[in-house]
Amino acid sequence: MSLAPYDEQMGQIADLLCAVNVLHWDARTLMPAAGAAARGKQIATLTGLARDLATGEPFRAALDAALEVTAALPADDLSRRAIDQTRLAVETLRRIPKSLIVEAADLAARAESAWVEARRTNDFDGFAPYLERTVALQRQRAEAIGYAEHPYDALVGQYEPGMTLARLDTLYATLRAGLLPLIERARSLPEPRLDLLRGPFPIPDQKAFASAMAARMGYDFARGRLDDTAHPFEISFDRTDVRITGRFRDTWLPSGFFGVWHEAGHGMYEQGLDPAFSRSIFATDLVGLYAVGGASFGMHESQSRLWENRVGRSRRFWALHCAEARAAFPRQLADADADSLWRAVNHVAPGLIRVEADELTYDLHIMFRTDLEAALMAGDLAVRDLPGAWSDMVRRDLGLDVPNHRDGVLQDVHWAAGLMGSFPTYTLGNVMSSQLFAAAGRDAGVTSGLERGDYAPLAAWLGANVHRHGRSLTPDAILRRATGSSLDPAPYLADLTRKVDQLAA
Amino acid sequence: MSLAPYDEQMGQIADLLCAVNVLHWDARTLMPAAGAAARGKQIATLTGLARDLATGEPFRAALDAALEVTAALPADDLSRRAIDQTRLAVETLRRIPKSLIVEAADLAARAESAWVEARRTNDFDGFAPYLERTVALQRQRAEAIGYAEHPYDALVGQYEPGMTLARLDTLYATLRAGLLPLIERARSLPEPRLDLLRGPFPIPDQKAFASAMAARMGYDFARGRLDDTAHPFEISFDRTDVRITGRFRDTWLPSGFFGVWHEAGHGMYEQGLDPAFSRSIFATDLVGLYAVGGASFGMHESQSRLWENRVGRSRRFWALHCAEARAAFPRQLADADADSLWRAVNHVAPGLIRVEADELTYDLHIMFRTDLEAALMAGDLAVRDLPGAWSDMVRRDLGLDVPNHRDGVLQDVHWAAGLMGSFPTYTLGNVMSSQLFAAAGRDAGVTSGLERGDYAPLAAWLGANVHRHGRSLTPDAILRRATGSSLDPAPYLADLTRKVDQLAA
Repeated sequence: MSLAPYDEQMGQIADLLCAVNVLHWDARTLMPAAGAAARGKQIATLTGLARDLATGEPFRAALDAALEVTAALPADDLSRRAIDQTRLAVETLRRIPKSLIVEAADLAARAESAWVEARRTNDFDGFAPYLERTVALQRQRAEAIGYAEHPYDALVGQYEPGMTLARLDTLYATLRAGLLPLIERARSLPEPRLDLLRGPFPIPDQKAFASAMAARMGYDFARGRLDDTAHPFEISFDRTDVRITGRFRDTWLPSGFFGVWHEAGHGMYEQGLDPAFSRSIFATDLVGLYAVGGASFGMHESQSRLWENRVGRSRRFWALHCAEARAAFPRQLADADADSLWRAVNHVAPGLIRVEADELTYDLHIMFRTDLEAALMAGDLAVRDLPGAWSDMVRRDLGLDVPNHRDGVLQDVHWAAGLMGSFPTYTLGNVMSSQLFAAAGRDAGVTSGLERGDYAPLAAWLGANVHRHGRSLTPDAILRRATGSSLDPAPYLADLTRKVDQLAA
Repeated sequence: MSLAPYDEQMGQIADLLCAVNVLHWDARTLMPAAGAAARGKQIATLTGLARDLATGEPFRAALDAALEVTAALPADDLSRRAIDQTRLAVETLRRIPKSLIVEAADLAARAESAWVEARRTNDFDGFAPYLERTVALQRQRAEAIGYAEHPYDALVGQYEPGMTLARLDTLYATLRAGLLPLIERARSLPEPRLDLLRGPFPIPDQKAFASAMAARMGYDFARGRLDDTAHPFEISFDRTDVRITGRFRDTWLPSGFFGVWHEAGHGMYEQGLDPAFSRSIFATDLVGLYAVGGASFGMHESQSRLWENRVGRSRRFWALHCAEARAAFPRQLADADADSLWRAVNHVAPGLIRVEADELTYDLHIMFRTDLEAALMAGDLAVRDLPGAWSDMVRRDLGLDVPNHRDGVLQDVHWAAGLMGSFPTYTLGNVMSSQLFAAAGRDAGVTSGLERGDYAPLAAWLGANVHRHGRSLTPDAILRRATGSSLDPAPYLADLTRKVDQLAA
């Protein structure tokens, strides 16, 4: 008995899913729109084959053979954990009908193209049929996976192991109670000099500056690249090829800058995977049939938000780098100083667009999306009523009217991509980012590095405590080992309180 | 009994191979070099799975079921031809060991990256191990496929059905006899104004002009795109997404222009496939495990060479479009006229680089590559002796010394890509391009279109007579139907003779 057949077959499944990532990356960046239908079939075929391999008899035999090797090993042995995780994932995967997987993969590929077009033309009705089918398929998926209390639990649990709607509601209540007074306080402050961020800044120059800074943070361009897209994302084809995309606006500097640093944070996670985990279950979501190296979507988001917000929006960052930014944009930033730039990129104001929201209002966007998704899954909300429900919630939570679908219900790609249940992981990521940043800050080398703009010690700390583990540890285990506690919103609320204190000073 | 299981499984095999094409396209255009090893594994896995599906029991059963439906149909019925072609291809494929296929696919992906680096650094020794293994695998492949006379026959027959080294030698003798006096005559003419082509021409402007002209020729950018690469190529992911690449040099206009029109000719072939043939055997080389919609590599090359040379290097083309070229490059082409531009782009001079060779010396490059490949396959030439043999042949055939590997044995990607036996199809394509262009010219609509710079009638003629058929007809059947004769070098030699007559006038 040997692990070799398991390793080889697991590697092939991983290869298929990495290839699917290449097909997705291309579809989202460069593919002519006319190619969407054929691409959808290709993605569906590859995903279906990965599912067949994972649930087929040869893989079952390989797993059985591997189990004979690993059963005697300690419970925390890596080989044993790999086999145990794989068996558990295959059991869940077997409960999801293949037809559902193939249709969802095909639909997602076509729906993403339809979404791009619908967003461009503000045409919710044109996109609604895709969304209706997506909701139907996601409800079937939830039933197939199974859940104790709410169908939404099955979906969110795919992205964040163990998370449920009830646990989210508890967390959200704590966050809302902490955030609302902070928002009120921040909104009473004088408006910062937003004109400093409006340039116009030539996009190639923005890319050059954002990329150089991402490289200093630790994103390795020799194992990646930055491209343009409608909706920024990071995707990995292996730890040796991890790509990020950005969306730049010549009259709004933060879109490009913080977008790149956000995605670079994701990218460093994938690039930092233990090389031994390439093509393994520790770099593969075998239930989601998705090649990804992070412990959970929330843990992934903790890395992007850490670099975007804990580092990039810190007062220290702008004190250190204001001169470089002015050198890159001497005309546009002629009368900018570190303090005014820092205040401008931290301006708190409820807005319509999630990806451009400030740190204080961001989670409100997530909370109402969670409510809408849960209602769609429970059957309490129909797709045709979604724009109205969206508008109601934006008015309630953000005090804004939604003028069009583009800046409303069509702003995010997630539903087109079939990622129902993933939005909460953004808020979970915010919470974890503060926990991890606080823990890293207890390392003297990290702190002195940050003080002089040397990000290597922080990147190394994250690499050792988070990145290298891939999916070999649960998010909870990573948090407990690295920070000493499980998920805890206190450091996050403390960070935001400190920021408002600084802004008010 | 039904065709449905066959259609579905054939579609899945085609999807896998189209996905492999996406992986190759990305590797050759955008992939960071560090990703090459992982990409090689991914391509090998997908290719191996396609081979497993094509040779597996379910596909055999589907073929048997399909045969019961099609056996009673006329021999030229499309469904029957599809099943017969598939069965024949699967029989051949079964003779090639899977280990050979998987290793070759993995090797090719890695060797292509190694070639890029070796070419950049002029390092033949660094590339030699890849080439030695490629030669060994190709020899094994030739033995597995089988041949009557020479192992090279098995390889060249993959790309051009029925072609053999003996047939090539006969053709080459005729061509050499016709070409050598023409070359001598052309070289006695006064040198044209090559300075007109040296600009410098800004590359974005070159791309814009070349692309606009490719679109007028009929390449549909809504179902394709043009990107940069080290070695120009065309590749198809479906008739709705057919990509071309170019290599532009700011001080040599022809590289970019004729390269784009060449690849656009390939692209129009794939875009012109009958939509019913998508995901079918008529768009798939099941022995080569390669998604391609053309009848043969030679027929494919006939389309690229037709647009590049019969159209793009014709006197009429430059008479029609000289003013547009001058408008695009008013400073660089200020003192250019149609006649001098036409003479410049037809300058005959033996050179080191195949892809930049003039029409008269081009085939000499192919002939000596054929000799070298055949010698490698027969075991008469070792890889370590290849640079020396290359230099000897360049001196013998072109009268030139080879100053470095980059402009010698490392100039082409083909051997890295495992395409041994494909070079002769370039000369076959040249020959067929003249046969087809002459036949199209007997259509009054085509001729009057060409006279006024309207390329739609020619494109439509090629679409109807060549493109739409995909691989549903042999190259010989296409030639006989479209031109009235089988492969015949006379129209090609006539075209070249006429060109030299014009140049001498």
